Amino acid sequence: MASPHPLDPASATELLQALALIQATYGPDVVLHWKTAGLEETPKHQLVPFLEAERAGKSIPAPDRLIFVMYYIKKTPRLFEAIVNLTTSQLDHHIELPREFHAPVDRVELNEAAATALADPRVKAEIERLELGPNSDVVVDPWDYGKDDENEQRRLTQIFFYTRNPKNNHPDSNHYAFPLSIMCIVDLVKMEVIKISHLPLGGDAVTSQTPGPRKVGAPIEPEYDHALQSFPPRTSLKPLQIVQPEGASFKVTGQLVEWEKWRFRVGFNWREGMTLHDLNFDGRSTFYRLSLSEMFVPYGDPRDPLHRKGAFDLGNVGAGYTANNLGLGCDCLGLIHYFDGAVIDANGNGVEKKNAICLHEEDAGIQYKHSNHRTGKATVVRKRQLILQTIITVAIYEYQFRWILQQTGDIEFETTATGILSTTPIDPDNTDKVPFGTRVGSGVLAPYHQHIFNLRIDPAIDGHLNSLSIVDSLPMAKDPVLNPYSTGYITEETIMQVSGTADADPFKARVFKMINPNVVNPVSLTPVGYKLLPIAGAPLFADKDSWHSRRSDFCDAAIWVTKYKDREYWCSGTYTNQSSGGHGIKSFVARQDNVANEDIVVWHSFAFTHNPRVEDFPIMPAESARVILKPNNFFNYNPTMDVPPSTQKFNQSVL
Amino acid sequence: MASPHPLDPASATELLQALALIQATYGPDVVLHWKTAGLEETPKHQLVPFLEAERAGKSIPAPDRLIFVMYYIKKTPRLFEAIVNLTTSQLDHHIELPREFHAPVDRVELNEAAATALADPRVKAEIERLELGPNSDVVVDPWDYGKDDENEQRRLTQIFFYTRNPKNNHPDSNHYAFPLSIMCIVDLVKMEVIKISHLPLGGDAVTSQTPGPRKVGAPIEPEYDHALQSFPPRTSLKPLQIVQPEGASFKVTGQLVEWEKWRFRVGFNWREGMTLHDLNFDGRSTFYRLSLSEMFVPYGDPRDPLHRKGAFDLGNVGAGYTANNLGLGCDCLGLIHYFDGAVIDANGNGVEKKNAICLHEEDAGIQYKHSNHRTGKATVVRKRQLILQTIITVAIYEYQFRWILQQTGDIEFETTATGILSTTPIDPDNTDKVPFGTRVGSGVLAPYHQHIFNLRIDPAIDGHLNSLSIVDSLPMAKDPVLNPYSTGYITEETIMQVSGTADADPFKARVFKMINPNVVNPVSLTPVGYKLLPIAGAPLFADKDSWHSRRSDFCDAAIWVTKYKDREYWCSGTYTNQSSGGHGIKSFVARQDNVANEDIVVWHSFAFTHNPRVEDFPIMPAESARVILKPNNFFNYNPTMDVPPSTQKFNQSVL
Repeated sequence: MASPHPLDPASATELLQALALIQATYGPDVVLHWKTAGLEETPKHQLVPFLEAERAGKSIPAPDRLIFVMYYIKKTPRLFEAIVNLTTSQLDHHIELPREFHAPVDRVELNEAAATALADPRVKAEIERLELGPNSDVVVDPWDYGKDDENEQRRLTQIFFYTRNPKNNHPDSNHYAFPLSIMCIVDLVKMEVIKISHLPLGGDAVTSQTPGPRKVGAPIEPEYDHALQSFPPRTSLKPLQIVQPEGASFKVTGQLVEWEKWRFRVGFNWREGMTLHDLNFDGRSTFYRLSLSEMFVPYGDPRDPLHRKGAFDLGNVGAGYTANNLGLGCDCLGLIHYFDGAVIDANGNGVEKKNAICLHEEDAGIQYKHSNHRTGKATVVRKRQLILQTIITVAIYEYQFRWILQQTGDIEFETTATGILSTTPIDPDNTDKVPFGTRVGSGVLAPYHQHIFNLRIDPAIDGHLNSLSIVDSLPMAKDPVLNPYSTGYITEETIMQVSGTADADPFKARVFKMINPNVVNPVSLTPVGYKLLPIAGAPLFADKDSWHSRRSDFCDAAIWVTKYKDREYWCSGTYTNQSSGGHGIKSFVARQDNVANEDIVVWHSFAFTHNPRVEDFPIMPAESARVILKPNNFFNYNPTMDVPPSTQKFNQSVL
Repeated sequence: MASPHPLDPASATELLQALALIQATYGPDVVLHWKTAGLEETPKHQLVPFLEAERAGKSIPAPDRLIFVMYYIKKTPRLFEAIVNLTTSQLDHHIELPREFHAPVDRVELNEAAATALADPRVKAEIERLELGPNSDVVVDPWDYGKDDENEQRRLTQIFFYTRNPKNNHPDSNHYAFPLSIMCIVDLVKMEVIKISHLPLGGDAVTSQTPGPRKVGAPIEPEYDHALQSFPPRTSLKPLQIVQPEGASFKVTGQLVEWEKWRFRVGFNWREGMTLHDLNFDGRSTFYRLSLSEMFVPYGDPRDPLHRKGAFDLGNVGAGYTANNLGLGCDCLGLIHYFDGAVIDANGNGVEKKNAICLHEEDAGIQYKHSNHRTGKATVVRKRQLILQTIITVAIYEYQFRWILQQTGDIEFETTATGILSTTPIDPDNTDKVPFGTRVGSGVLAPYHQHIFNLRIDPAIDGHLNSLSIVDSLPMAKDPVLNPYSTGYITEETIMQVSGTADADPFKARVFKMINPNVVNPVSLTPVGYKLLPIAGAPLFADKDSWHSRRSDFCDAAIWVTKYKDREYWCSGTYTNQSSGGHGIKSFVARQDNVANEDIVVWHSFAFTHNPRVEDFPIMPAESARVILKPNNFFNYNPTMDVPPSTQKFNQSVL
């Protein structure tokens, strides 16, 4: 096998090699609880010369191949991290972490916790008291625990209870339509139930310590699985297929993708899932690395014990772990290329993530059009785009992440939420106004919540020394000579000098420009750049003093800029599970680095504020938002002008 | 021929019938200069009973068929409007308008003005002085005049000058890459040049009264027409085709469209182009009428004589007049149905607008997905959408307007801008910073500008009595019992009582809900409704005292709500050309009507702030934005749940 490119994801073989080297330091008798492992990316000062030599067609030795690993000593709270050097078979780094740090959850451990809860006699008694009746198996949902106590250092999970649809009691029935009024907390080290709580059943925080039998309610149609629905599927929809008779326009060589004027590498790791590297357009460098850095999903239902619901889906679980196998033709259409990934499981097995990323082309309407009314001649060019897609399932929710590359040099990051709402019970007879949730069925309350994302953008606009400028559009001052009719407006540009933050401001049409101050565009006479069109929206609504806020400091501003530092990828820190905050992006900007004409990283936080509708249940129609990176006086003219015109011969449309 | 449905657009025959009835009042010797004619829609109190009877399968007499007409007495400033009743062959309304009102421009008149300018000896002398050299035919761009003088009542046009690319001197060469430094004003009644001005050639307002020969500059590649470019088209792109082997899923009967659970009518008129009427989903009323009400394109280059550039593209020209013939397979893919329209020309001829609107389906990715990690079962349903599209060319710019109907009950309005930037010359040797424009070629400045749209939404959510509420998401007050960890957030809803305005506020995740307070959703226990997700953005940057602002008062707020009034369709008034303001939406809301539980109209203003990039030239890659109308506790559950799952058999994708 050829030696991997430094940016190739770690293979299962490499991950197992790293685990073996760590296990060897303990001998065979110590059982380790493996948490995560993945490529430790090459430090930039080593990788850049390698990539430059590669581009120049020269061969220089590959940097050492490194693997990052997290593990516990089994059944203990002792957490370690290591960087294993596969080239030298050494551990370059190996430390035990302080007790307040917690590794991500894993499915093996959560399943064990679920079984523990269901076997607990006190839990059984509580379920008994609900008198669920026949055909009503109990199903549980373990959640990452969150944080509500400064001194709590135990490794915990919180478990919510549901029952299956009594009409079918089927394993695929949508139990979220049948929430129960109890929950419990499980200690993951001792693997025992340490607390049982009752949930509030009205619009207020009142709970009963001795709740009676469950009052039965349900949505009118609770099932999203077609096989279980009370009506047949509609037959009105005719097939629509994508045909590419001459094949795809992209070329894939390992992890290297070439399409139109783009050339880049696709990465994968346990945490971010898909990453993009070394993006070049027409031979010019644009971005060094693009990835989703973190996402946080805090819930607005404030009532104890629901107040802890707030998940870091990347740091607490991992977008690589939860990546779906994208089945052919169901998640996208047309000619599809798949990339695989690899992770490890808790028992130290390698797990292939087949089809974790897919690549395909889409037609996205009109790229440009103009009709010359003088001659009647119309020029139409269609817009072809390249999509890299991954879909993750984080227990209830599905997130679709798509990097969309355009022939124009634009890069778009689209994030889509679908899946099932997290629900909590409400007395079916209660009619109180609930200001923090929506009834989505009789007896079913779906609390308001936010999905807050952070996109990490490492620009390399014609090189690594870049600046970030804030560009506002503003009315022009009144001036009898220059602005005699007060119609003028202008832009004002402020270059950020020191690491820090900026807010979005749609009312000033604010954009953020990543520029290379050392390269002037010969046409505009301004520095070459890319602009970031941010998603302006609601910040985190939880109070600034709340644990939600302290743990997710990236939610404090739409834009953050830092000076590049190796291993600084995670805007809420490396260890987000049960975290107390303080290790996130605020600590990065606190260095007060110079960021003008430096190797900078730009971080963009944006939110979906999801106040559920009845129509979002039993399964939520996808909602999307796009962040756009757009060349801004980077090229000398529209780079799609040589795309051939749209013709009926090529498109084969039908009347 | 069957008698038309009251919502059918006026046919060319009907328009000519109306013109003949007007001409008859003058006799054959008075020559009329026809401006516009189109269906005068049936008053709502007559149309609603007709539509209700139709839905109930009853037949009641159709209301009278009315045509609205505007015309001048030729070569005079005398402007008239009339409503011609074709059923009775009477003129129901016929008045002469005061002299400050001006009808839209028309191509016949502008072509005459262009010829007048080019034939004018003083203009010829100015062109001579520029010493353009061989192969440099002059091309002119007449613009609607705008407004800068309270007392100016003459009908005027302003004309900007360009030259063809000397490399080809071809009629389809992109003359906007070769702007000249002169412009003139033509009186359209006298048809004579009344003023010639020189344009500023630096970054300031200085102009020379005796400019010397033109300094030659040009973009690196000025041509968007492939036949004229200096490079061949790329060959990297393989065909991508849409195949619908069993046909389309929609059914069209005249102007009536049925698709999935939707049923609605497509209208067309000279001014708005495409309109949608009587939209029903699964037998329930949602919207009575949807249309683009107006768009205003003010320019930020403040310098005299460029300060007047600010076009009302609907009121001054008409989206029906400028609608493109959407050629098969070039403007959209797949199975396409076309709707035609009809307008009149200045000489009173009927003009068929063939293929002015197209209808097709698109696959838009994933409608919803969920994987049950307990069983491994994934449910994926794809998202099919129905698109109604029209594309207009307003001299330089192309606008694509798309109504997108979803299986979920969502309705989206997408507006896209492409085409050619309006340019003005700048001395190629000048390197001043220009804060209100971008150099897009040597000697070519593209001024900043805005495209400000207003969407008119006439809701009929389960009936005509509706309210508009402003819904904000807000942190919940601290409360030791209900919000013990300060994590809560809530929504607050304010119902608008009196006609007025509201602003967008993305930082509160603000949405606007059109609700029917008389119909409660049995699941959510709240009124049924649709929410409007506004486009939050920059307001008009021109000063509040400027003519730009006074004429486009709809730009003052994102949301306006009025009580429905017949014939109130245009948010800047019926007569926008050379308008002084005062007849727009501010005058509608000034009635201070009650708008709670009334027949209301909601108007949404949104802007593209377009500060050109070099990449937008010589032709601008399409930029889009979408307004979304989304059922919000209107249905009892996700209405797409019976859409069959996505299967490879249906989709036929390829590895």
